[in-house]
Amino acid sequence: MPSDSLAPPQRSGSIKRTPSDLSKELAAQDLPEPEYLRERRARDDEQRKLDEKDRKLESLEGEEPEALVMTHRRRQSEKAQEAMAEALSTLELGMPERIARANARADGAKTPIPPVQTEGHVSVPSTPSLEEPPAVATSSGAAAQVVTPWDVQGAVVEGVQMAIDYNHLIDQFGTKRIDDELLERFERLTGRKPHLLLRRGTFFSHRELNLILDRYEQKKPFYLYTGRGPSSGSMHLGHQIPFIFTQWLQDVFDCPLVIQLTDDEKFLFKPTLKLEQVHEFAYQNAKDIIACGFKLEKTFIFSNLDYVGGPFYHNVVRISRLITARQSQQTFGFKLDDNVGKWHFVAIQATPSFSNSFPQIFGDKSDIPCLIPCAIDQDPYFRLTRECAQRLKYKKPALIHAKFIPSLLGAQSKMSASAAETSIYMTDTAKEIKNKINKYAFSGGQTTVEEHREKGGDPDVDVSFQYLTFFLDDDAEVAQIAQDYRSGKLLTGELKQKTISLLQDFVKSFQDRRAAVTDDLVKSFMDGSRKIDPTLRYGPGCTGEKPKKEQPKA
Amino acid sequence: MPSDSLAPPQRSGSIKRTPSDLSKELAAQDLPEPEYLRERRARDDEQRKLDEKDRKLESLEGEEPEALVMTHRRRQSEKAQEAMAEALSTLELGMPERIARANARADGAKTPIPPVQTEGHVSVPSTPSLEEPPAVATSSGAAAQVVTPWDVQGAVVEGVQMAIDYNHLIDQFGTKRIDDELLERFERLTGRKPHLLLRRGTFFSHRELNLILDRYEQKKPFYLYTGRGPSSGSMHLGHQIPFIFTQWLQDVFDCPLVIQLTDDEKFLFKPTLKLEQVHEFAYQNAKDIIACGFKLEKTFIFSNLDYVGGPFYHNVVRISRLITARQSQQTFGFKLDDNVGKWHFVAIQATPSFSNSFPQIFGDKSDIPCLIPCAIDQDPYFRLTRECAQRLKYKKPALIHAKFIPSLLGAQSKMSASAAETSIYMTDTAKEIKNKINKYAFSGGQTTVEEHREKGGDPDVDVSFQYLTFFLDDDAEVAQIAQDYRSGKLLTGELKQKTISLLQDFVKSFQDRRAAVTDDLVKSFMDGSRKIDPTLRYGPGCTGEKPKKEQPKA
Repeated sequence: MPSDSLAPPQRSGSIKRTPSDLSKELAAQDLPEPEYLRERRARDDEQRKLDEKDRKLESLEGEEPEALVMTHRRRQSEKAQEAMAEALSTLELGMPERIARANARADGAKTPIPPVQTEGHVSVPSTPSLEEPPAVATSSGAAAQVVTPWDVQGAVVEGVQMAIDYNHLIDQFGTKRIDDELLERFERLTGRKPHLLLRRGTFFSHRELNLILDRYEQKKPFYLYTGRGPSSGSMHLGHQIPFIFTQWLQDVFDCPLVIQLTDDEKFLFKPTLKLEQVHEFAYQNAKDIIACGFKLEKTFIFSNLDYVGGPFYHNVVRISRLITARQSQQTFGFKLDDNVGKWHFVAIQATPSFSNSFPQIFGDKSDIPCLIPCAIDQDPYFRLTRECAQRLKYKKPALIHAKFIPSLLGAQSKMSASAAETSIYMTDTAKEIKNKINKYAFSGGQTTVEEHREKGGDPDVDVSFQYLTFFLDDDAEVAQIAQDYRSGKLLTGELKQKTISLLQDFVKSFQDRRAAVTDDLVKSFMDGSRKIDPTLRYGPGCTGEKPKKEQPKA
Repeated sequence: MPSDSLAPPQRSGSIKRTPSDLSKELAAQDLPEPEYLRERRARDDEQRKLDEKDRKLESLEGEEPEALVMTHRRRQSEKAQEAMAEALSTLELGMPERIARANARADGAKTPIPPVQTEGHVSVPSTPSLEEPPAVATSSGAAAQVVTPWDVQGAVVEGVQMAIDYNHLIDQFGTKRIDDELLERFERLTGRKPHLLLRRGTFFSHRELNLILDRYEQKKPFYLYTGRGPSSGSMHLGHQIPFIFTQWLQDVFDCPLVIQLTDDEKFLFKPTLKLEQVHEFAYQNAKDIIACGFKLEKTFIFSNLDYVGGPFYHNVVRISRLITARQSQQTFGFKLDDNVGKWHFVAIQATPSFSNSFPQIFGDKSDIPCLIPCAIDQDPYFRLTRECAQRLKYKKPALIHAKFIPSLLGAQSKMSASAAETSIYMTDTAKEIKNKINKYAFSGGQTTVEEHREKGGDPDVDVSFQYLTFFLDDDAEVAQIAQDYRSGKLLTGELKQKTISLLQDFVKSFQDRRAAVTDDLVKSFMDGSRKIDPTLRYGPGCTGEKPKKEQPKA
């Protein structure tokens, strides 16, 4: 089991008064005047910058090279943070959307209170008002964290943005934590040591993964379903995580896998993109995905723009008949001025959860469940999907949820495809990777070498260290690095060099594999008429019989 | 031109205070208490029934056979009316829907104020409230007429349901009347006498039919688009009207035609129907449609469940991105508890309006406009479609709107597939047709033969006569019948016999043609990969040049 130094990222930057508590307090309050809130936050930001400048001036006294590098990095980091805020409000979102979203942010609309633990039932407030969705903004210069499929922001407490609180999300969404017991069972049934993304808690939460393992133990079939929203032609490091993990799962189970490219969704949600663009992005992304090493004979990758139709479309209408506009509005926080495509899109993302959407794999069988590896922000889609499954007499999809890989700026936000300077792209050169890490990666070190040697660094908030934990498989080595950094033996520059080398190797190796992906190979993966083998390979722990009763907890 | 006796049905049962005026008055008022309204209407209905019974008792004094028949018919008609009301509230709509709709009716929600003459712009009220859509119900025991794609009801004035006021719809929807000048131009360009459904004003309204005629004159291509919602396996007489007319248009223009079977829509809007059912209905309806005589080499009939996908789906998302939930809500009167499929469906019905949705006919050409023959209740879909067309830089669809064929009970409601006793089905036997007309067809005659001989009958409200005008091509004969009925020379029984014979022949001939439609022929019509010739044949009036300036009106 991971040692304490391998603590999963959600524990970094933890605070006494958790955003969870805060949001509960705030949810009980009325909506504050948005203008007032905005001004207050701007004042707080201003003050924070002044404080930071003071600190910098102090730190300039120590004139060692390491200190200089760090000061420079801090300054760069601040600039990047501003750039990112700017990017979030302009680049990421097209003009009309941007304005709508800015307003929504101001009145807290992007944070509708999700139905808490409402598996199989989405609760409806007794006096709903569409124009003022439930808000969790606050009058005390703070804001609860926002995790929706289109927006991920840590809570703001006293003007400072916090790390994403993943424990809170488990409570809020009503999912289950992946615990040691589940991982032990996984290892026993499959005969495989859990992937580092499981061991280190990147995949930290699930819905009914235990039932999928039950089926596996009984040698019953299932399949994997994951997806990608092609918002640009190139993917970043964060996008790799679910695919790395899904590829590993496919390797373990040797099971069928469907990968949905939601080019239609990106078109609906990003008013500046043309249909031809998102369609091309889907194709380019497919190349990236194929480069992760999926098995052609068991994998179907599809663009919605190409594949929606026939039995797939049949399930779309079956599902859309079961989801009311109110549910869609409450789950995703839509407004009446959002287009009907957005309100309806949930049915498109839900559909691959059901096996008869893929006749080329499963014929007309509708009783083969799937397991969906995805980032936690996608859970709202599948909460509604699972409710529909029950009513359609289909199998509910099981889920396994990932945390986000932090941006270079820290754990308060996820890597964004449109913030070039704070993300590592899969197209970056070795030099770009080196420069980005050196310039922007938020450091947990001290401001001078002396201070660092004396007090040690904090790996839990250090982004370079975090990145190591996503990609360095050797648990002992990761533990050693954490220990050395904490003790002050390892300097920030040295830690960064380790991460740089690791990522350079990872990205280079990816680029080599991607270059080998031919257009013909992509066509094969995306051929909707191609027959795909629906069988699995079962592990040493599979008895073919019903699982024995759970062992009582130790 | 039609003589006065051939007056189109909208003139029958006309009232001094038109529903149009009424609805304007009412729109300015607040929403009345729905419960109160319901009770009031129930009381009015009760009173009406008592009055009718009194009248019947009086009429029983005249004991001639004709009078007896008529009295019997009146009584039957009353029973049928109750049955129809019952049918409308139960059979037509599944349980949950029924309740929702009943509530909607009670608070006037099914009659949202449509955007008036908002071609290219759907107006938004300044203080929108989704839970209380603009209502035109009233506190005076009355209700404005309801014409939506799912509900057609004449206005209720002082407890009595009126005929549909089509003039009001032209104003309300912002369409243009089909006038003599347009018909003359049509005849000049095509060299064909306008169809009786044009001459007699069944197709009474249009949007930019003149622009389609401009293109025709210039020998530029266009196509026809119409559709059918397959709510049951068999069609009635009313369903034939748009297809009879569209077949004639195709014969005149020799142009491509696409026919959309909205099986997905029926599934979304009728919670009791299964997907397999609506899909089968679509197939059965296709047989009925083919029996109308469309040209295989120029006609594509498609089930949405089969055909949505590829280039068609590309246009669906292009359109759904342009239509806000607010527009859909305001245009169709949806509530938050309606499913997202309904809110989104407009994009599916809009899509066949654009030529690049049919690559097997038009390749990727997006600049070939269509003309849509449809009943007037479908106009809201195409109002939104035309607005989208402009923004997509596609050609706006032109429209030509039909009135409804009245039910046997009179012009206040349209024929309904689920009110078996008041509709003529295309599967009815000669005997069934005879019995239905004799028993249920609302009569414009007097209560005794003497009275009828003396005062004459009223063909304008007589349903048998109305039916004649839809199917008897000979204008002189129709005029003679009207004149004889009005003078008292022709008795109701005799008039009914004419209609019975005519419809028996029409239905029998249809049944023979339908029996000849093979499964292979249906497959050919519905084969989405079949190439279709996109060309037209141009009439004698087509110069290939821009049309001359309109003649000044005589």
